Amino acid sequence: MTTWQATALTLFPEMFPGSLGCSLAGRALREGIWSMHTQDLRAHGLGRHRTIDDTPFGGGAGMVMRPDVVSAALDDVVPDGRPVIYPTPRGRTLTQADVRRYAAGPGVVVLCGRYEGVDERVLEARDIEQVSIGDYILSGGEVAALVLLDACVRLLPGVMGSDASAAEESFADGLLEYPLYTKPAQWEGRDVPDVLLSGHHGAIARWRHEMAEAATRQRRPDLWAAHVARAGEDTSRPAGARASADRLN
Amino acid sequence: MTTWQATALTLFPEMFPGSLGCSLAGRALREGIWSMHTQDLRAHGLGRHRTIDDTPFGGGAGMVMRPDVVSAALDDVVPDGRPVIYPTPRGRTLTQADVRRYAAGPGVVVLCGRYEGVDERVLEARDIEQVSIGDYILSGGEVAALVLLDACVRLLPGVMGSDASAAEESFADGLLEYPLYTKPAQWEGRDVPDVLLSGHHGAIARWRHEMAEAATRQRRPDLWAAHVARAGEDTSRPAGARASADRLN
Repeated sequence: MTTWQATALTLFPEMFPGSLGCSLAGRALREGIWSMHTQDLRAHGLGRHRTIDDTPFGGGAGMVMRPDVVSAALDDVVPDGRPVIYPTPRGRTLTQADVRRYAAGPGVVVLCGRYEGVDERVLEARDIEQVSIGDYILSGGEVAALVLLDACVRLLPGVMGSDASAAEESFADGLLEYPLYTKPAQWEGRDVPDVLLSGHHGAIARWRHEMAEAATRQRRPDLWAAHVARAGEDTSRPAGARASADRLN
Repeated sequence: MTTWQATALTLFPEMFPGSLGCSLAGRALREGIWSMHTQDLRAHGLGRHRTIDDTPFGGGAGMVMRPDVVSAALDDVVPDGRPVIYPTPRGRTLTQADVRRYAAGPGVVVLCGRYEGVDERVLEARDIEQVSIGDYILSGGEVAALVLLDACVRLLPGVMGSDASAAEESFADGLLEYPLYTKPAQWEGRDVPDVLLSGHHGAIARWRHEMAEAATRQRRPDLWAAHVARAGEDTSRPAGARASADRLN
């Protein structure tokens, strides 16, 4: 078995494996399905104070991580063909397709930024992928790294079994999931929708598809617009067949 | 001083405060600027096995968290006017505006889902906000909760000082950040762009704005389209004034 390798370059090695040491990811870590290493950026800092940052050229608030320090820490890692990923709000948006690609490879190296960010030259010189996990600001890249690694690790063979692939497929269709119901059938005066108790698989599939479309339209106009555009390209198939293919395969 | 209160309802209480116990968030936690509590969902499980989930009505893979168990755990928390947030790929997209709103309030209660998700009825009955941190699948809601809390905590008064508000403003304009450079001015044969060493504040501002636009256009067509639409509504001001207002105020 090949171990999927995660390395975090960070000023806070104690943040890893963090939540990834618990639950299924933690068990997989102990079983050697994946490994977690940290590289302390501070150890590559300059001078007596182990300085890793300085003020930005051109002015502005905050501090910037120096290219010489970051490159020294990075060059101390054996990449083994792994991509180097820098979580930053400046990056392209992380998608499940990225996660699948990372999980299918030998592992990842994650550069965890602090302060205002990292000098642009080292990002270019070391071919570092800039990826954003969402349009909000975090105190540093470490929590973003935990998100990225969690998403990858659950896809590794032997970690979640068939559950992972089931969730994968439901997400891949570009619609939000349909609502879920379980026991009890009546709770606080609220019933499970009749159709789900009907045993009529076709009716259940149609209802779930309609619910998925309604949720997408209401909550994610961006995904809905893309879905409508795709549906317009594909009017040759009957609506029922489209519904099944979109939602339930 | 009022303490900002975070409560996580989770099957893995040991995941908290996790990375939020380190660095600035950890110091703020120890100083009482915010507090972190967990509510163990398993403690509200049913029967000898403390069951918290069951199969989905209507069929399908995986398990669903029961509404009676989730509501029992939730009703055991004193909300004190805090929103209850359920991180899920089915939710609306989390933005920095949401984060600001949560940080400005008394705190948050976060329901961390596992398995396929939570019964829809309890989400409706308890007015739970469904929020997605990004279009990827995690092993559970705990890591998403850490992201949400990290983003909120850094905005609390006394946690980051003026750095937080500086980053806030640069993000709020709808463009990605411009590239950052720091010492050394020459590194591995790569120079800092001349303009940043010129001392000409107007030229630096214009260059940074151009770089911010270029990065946004290339990496985030969604943000770029919104930016272009806004610019079209605002053609009465000269281009230079627009650049300053967008990027540097």
